[in-house]
Amino acid sequence: MTKELVFGHKNPDTDAIAAAIALAYLEKQDGYDTEAVALGPVNPETKFVLDYFGVKVPRIVENAEPETDKVMLVDHNEPQQSINDIANLTVTHVVDHHRINGFNTAKPLYFRAAPYGCCSTVITQMYSEEGIDIPKEIAGLMMSAIISDTLLLKSPTTTDVDRDALQALADIAGVDNIEDYGVKMLKAGTNVDAKSDKE
Amino acid sequence: MTKELVFGHKNPDTDAIAAAIALAYLEKQDGYDTEAVALGPVNPETKFVLDYFGVKVPRIVENAEPETDKVMLVDHNEPQQSINDIANLTVTHVVDHHRINGFNTAKPLYFRAAPYGCCSTVITQMYSEEGIDIPKEIAGLMMSAIISDTLLLKSPTTTDVDRDALQALADIAGVDNIEDYGVKMLKAGTNVDAKSDKE
Ligand SMILES: [Mn+2]
Ligand SMILES: [Mn+2]
Ligand SMILES: [Mn+2]
Ligand SMILES: [Mn+2]
Repeated sequence: MTKELVFGHKNPDTDAIAAAIALAYLEKQDGYDTEAVALGPVNPETKFVLDYFGVKVPRIVENAEPETDKVMLVDHNEPQQSINDIANLTVTHVVDHHRINGFNTAKPLYFRAAPYGCCSTVITQMYSEEGIDIPKEIAGLMMSAIISDTLLLKSPTTTDVDRDALQALADIAGVDNIEDYGVKMLKAGTNVDAKSDKE
Repeated sequence: MTKELVFGHKNPDTDAIAAAIALAYLEKQDGYDTEAVALGPVNPETKFVLDYFGVKVPRIVENAEPETDKVMLVDHNEPQQSINDIANLTVTHVVDHHRINGFNTAKPLYFRAAPYGCCSTVITQMYSEEGIDIPKEIAGLMMSAIISDTLLLKSPTTTDVDRDALQALADIAGVDNIEDYGVKMLKAGTNVDAKSDKE
């Protein structure tokens, strides 16, 4: 079985990182040899999230071809947002919540998109459909991604599916006060404010 | 709620018709006002299938805009295989098993594709995930679509998921001898042969 890299878009946000880690784990249960990676350094918000749930920062890759020619995309589908050598690779899976734009393949693949507020919401649904338990720390990451993409369920893109997923993930992650955690996390993303608040 | 038309590709085959009827029914359970239609007359094989399971031939449409601007595509995604006025419409759902080619949207949507032998196999999976019972006659149509697209599970595109779906659908449809039914159905599609066999 060829190794596959799993990643979100360039300039990764919390959803791009969380969804990559969550899909890599899910597909590993289905027998794929996956590794979640990042197309760039994580931002301060995502760093806060990874530290909080004790998850290692994913390795940064700029091209896949030295390692593999098979990849899975999360939280994006547009080639210009993807890995540099995307044109030379076979995409076997896509999970996304954006419009489809410029994404073409030579062969059939797994493509799963839904008009939800967050890609991690789609992946939460996939775990449930396949009856696979979400590890506590991955639930924490996906919960954080929903908070990040929907600004604590306040963005106009928020759906009831996001709301239900957020609560279910918080229960698994053992986060009792979502609002409290979410504000801390969002503040960590706006560095200076967070610091001046604490100082 | 705007009415939505659900259809497969031009020059419809059995999967294009079966998948449209099956997705229209499934999405109706989710509250969408759907109607399965066809982009052209059904072929003799599909006519045999519809007659066998007592399902009406879908209405033929050439353009959606006189009726609605919202549509769901099955068994295709390429615009040139779709309804004439596709460029003016909003596609809210796609379910497919082909490569993705030239399909772009202005907004996020439901897009579900898998590299299986038949689109009806993907839809069978969706019924199961949503816990919705497949009506007997719709199971018969989807079973026929799998037989048609995979040539009785003999095509190189056939997967284990197609095999399992075919058996499950035959059980619901009450077809005991899949091989026997399948040969009759495939012969009905090759008109002349079927007739000379009987004569
Ligand atoms: Mn993102
Ligand atoms: Mn996102
Ligand atoms: Mn077809
Ligand atoms: Mn087909």
